[in-house]
Amino acid sequence: MKAKVYVTLKNGVLDPQGKAIAGALHGLGFDTVADVRQGKFIELDIAETDADAAKARIDEMCRKLLANTVIENYRIELA
Amino acid sequence: MKAKVYVTLKNGVLDPQGKAIAGALHGLGFDTVADVRQGKFIELDIAETDADAAKARIDEMCRKLLANTVIENYRIELA
Repeated sequence: MKAKVYVTLKNGVLDPQGKAIAGALHGLGFDTVADVRQGKFIELDIAETDADAAKARIDEMCRKLLANTVIENYRIELA
Repeated sequence: MKAKVYVTLKNGVLDPQGKAIAGALHGLGFDTVADVRQGKFIELDIAETDADAAKARIDEMCRKLLANTVIENYRIELA
């Protein structure tokens, strides 16, 4: 079973990587860009057949390794 | 207008970051994880009102800065 995990910084947490991208885009002449935030996108291939079990397992992975829940949110999508 | 950009490595391109995550997950006891691939997720806030114009503009940003089209694919979603 394939799953997608999106990890994003919580609102209010400073995102220097996003700021750097915004600065570079402005430098290239893309003046209409107001704000940029960068997150992570992780594709997992997991050997589970039950969707609920897979989701619970991936949720555990997110809490233990993939996301820092103090400053990041995560969203799981099963495909 | 808000837009989301997903940048992923093309199939066949080695993904050491994904391999490292898979190794760490195995180390934590998540044996059912077969394969992991990591990509980037970028949220843009762009001052365009026309969806087609915004998409064209973001496509240009991807080709010029956000993605390395030799080894990466990108997907744009307007919200």
